[in-house]
Amino acid sequence: MALALEGLCVLDLSRVLAGPYACMVLADLGADVVKVEMPGRGDDARAYPPYIEGESAYFMSLNRNKRSVTLDLKNPAGRRLLTNLAAKADVLVENYRPGAMARLGLAYDDLRQTNPRLIYAAISGFGQTGPYAQRPAYDAVVQALSGLMSITGPEGGPPTRVGTSIADVTAGLFAVIGILAALYRRQETGVGQMVDVAMLDSVVAVLENAVARFVATGEVPAPLGNRHPAIFPFEPFDTADGQVMVAAGNDDLWGRLCSALALPSLASDPRFRTNPLRHDNYRAMREILSEAFIQRTTEEWRAILDAAGVPNGAINSIADLVQDPQIAAREMLQDVVHPVAGRTIIPGIPIKLSQTPGTIRRPAPLLGEQTGQVLIEWLGLSGEELAGLRNSGAIG
Amino acid sequence: MALALEGLCVLDLSRVLAGPYACMVLADLGADVVKVEMPGRGDDARAYPPYIEGESAYFMSLNRNKRSVTLDLKNPAGRRLLTNLAAKADVLVENYRPGAMARLGLAYDDLRQTNPRLIYAAISGFGQTGPYAQRPAYDAVVQALSGLMSITGPEGGPPTRVGTSIADVTAGLFAVIGILAALYRRQETGVGQMVDVAMLDSVVAVLENAVARFVATGEVPAPLGNRHPAIFPFEPFDTADGQVMVAAGNDDLWGRLCSALALPSLASDPRFRTNPLRHDNYRAMREILSEAFIQRTTEEWRAILDAAGVPNGAINSIADLVQDPQIAAREMLQDVVHPVAGRTIIPGIPIKLSQTPGTIRRPAPLLGEQTGQVLIEWLGLSGEELAGLRNSGAIG
Repeated sequence: MALALEGLCVLDLSRVLAGPYACMVLADLGADVVKVEMPGRGDDARAYPPYIEGESAYFMSLNRNKRSVTLDLKNPAGRRLLTNLAAKADVLVENYRPGAMARLGLAYDDLRQTNPRLIYAAISGFGQTGPYAQRPAYDAVVQALSGLMSITGPEGGPPTRVGTSIADVTAGLFAVIGILAALYRRQETGVGQMVDVAMLDSVVAVLENAVARFVATGEVPAPLGNRHPAIFPFEPFDTADGQVMVAAGNDDLWGRLCSALALPSLASDPRFRTNPLRHDNYRAMREILSEAFIQRTTEEWRAILDAAGVPNGAINSIADLVQDPQIAAREMLQDVVHPVAGRTIIPGIPIKLSQTPGTIRRPAPLLGEQTGQVLIEWLGLSGEELAGLRNSGAIG
Repeated sequence: MALALEGLCVLDLSRVLAGPYACMVLADLGADVVKVEMPGRGDDARAYPPYIEGESAYFMSLNRNKRSVTLDLKNPAGRRLLTNLAAKADVLVENYRPGAMARLGLAYDDLRQTNPRLIYAAISGFGQTGPYAQRPAYDAVVQALSGLMSITGPEGGPPTRVGTSIADVTAGLFAVIGILAALYRRQETGVGQMVDVAMLDSVVAVLENAVARFVATGEVPAPLGNRHPAIFPFEPFDTADGQVMVAAGNDDLWGRLCSALALPSLASDPRFRTNPLRHDNYRAMREILSEAFIQRTTEEWRAILDAAGVPNGAINSIADLVQDPQIAAREMLQDVVHPVAGRTIIPGIPIKLSQTPGTIRRPAPLLGEQTGQVLIEWLGLSGEELAGLRNSGAIG
């Protein structure tokens, strides 16, 4: 079966997370992604713990479906090779500090001279423009600056970092969307363009209604713990052996919840009949529900709430998640056999296409594993030329 | 200037967040997005507080650039109109419970009979398949089940919900990628397909290395507060008047940090020279740095760390964010004048395309604001036909 992005050639010059994540999404959907790495060292993430048989589990989970080519961009012949590869590519992705590619003579304005069809995506902490453009950034800095930490955490407690690098990942996703939109446009015009995505912009774009709430009310949003700012109840309750998350998103669900709790009179209690009333009498509601939920185990409550049609969930650990039957049915954790690390488990593909489903076709590459193969395939180099480049240090 | 997705016709049958967010991204990049709503009621989010002049700030922040058409899908003539609109559309997005569209005769398998080019995106809590497919879901339930809460929160503290509805938003972004990939494929084949995206799958796909860490080590990841699991220091420190986030992502940055703190001997201290050593002697490192940071204000430290090239950031509130000069330079908060609510501020567009930049062309629509306009434009209906449909209750 064909893949959605089959035939799309992508050069991945990025490291660690945002760029590699974007290129992984493209590769999962069928693009031919060639990861360009520094000889002898490679992507910084190859050195991130933990390791399986010396291979980084972090790197392996972000670079499946790619091929690796080692090119020294500080070597003039290495830079020429990169320019030649970019002349054959549809898409180039990099996440260097703004200006770094220009200093190598590899900026978009350089590369489009030989390939006007090229789509050049630059992912950075703060973007290619603005007063912070040259500042270094990591995910934690962006989570802090963006206001995301200020709305995450225990109620009344300190701002809290989201436990996954969400600034990197959302920037990667917005970059993929920009690349695919530019490809759509290119079908009309035959010309590529530059896609400039910043981690800070990306987090601001996913703050949901925090900005809207502040603008409308003037109140500065604060961490709310596990409560929802406007829906009640929409939070976890302690059970006999753990917790259960309950989301009664409207008055109908409130009625179902009261029946499920065997507290039918609660549904008609004038203090709680509507969501605004439950807001006003939140403490009283919470107390009554808490007394009920503590009587049974999480598993018992989940069965009862499921039967009543009340949205609910266990608060799973990663160990629980790995055992979840829905995750298995959706193939969201997949076995991959790596030539060195052996059998590992990596996340599956969340975009399910009916006609051209994405696939995991190969494990993450070893450093420079396909250098010769790609240079022969894309540039038609001979064995002698490869040997010469290897001797000069241009390729690894 | 043209827009990247100009000419792309999108029917938005979705409510609240994941689907509307996906359609907003398409609209920002130039698609003609027609939001189909229930007469007299519309998108549930129109009723979400807070309000500005009676208009929901939540709804307004998620539906700019769209037009609104009110169609009653419980009315046979309303359903026929929807089928006719879908025959003209490139893309349809819905986020009903799986099966709901089929019960209306509006499933992908129905609509593709008249429009084989249609790309049909269904966003749901758990996906169209698997044992949980029919379960209701809200963001909080998905954050709980996915393991994301289990890795977010204060160190040693309870699992914590991310303060934005990240399950909805990431599902919306993956749906956009699926739609654009299906469009790319359609250029070859002339045929559309179905895009099935689940909130649960989407969060699993953005857990970064949590699954990889668990698989490699067998240790169940827990909330780490604001620390990083593998990089030291990479966390906030208390200052004389607040906090500053410091991310010394490698040994070179550690050296720069020591100089910035006027503690040059620290850089050569054998306890802290490398990242693994700083891991082993974390408590001692944290104590020395804490004593230093408390001596000056956040603003003083930020200037010093910026000069030294050490990644750092204030932990901004939403009120701080709104004042940030980088946000202004990147146009990440934009003024929009709404006909009822007046001037409001909504998030900008994080995808910066050099040739076909996205634009905010119109505020969120009033309920049914463009019903007549769209039905005339897309279906060529006459004024009499519109009046008849209105009388029958098929349109609002």
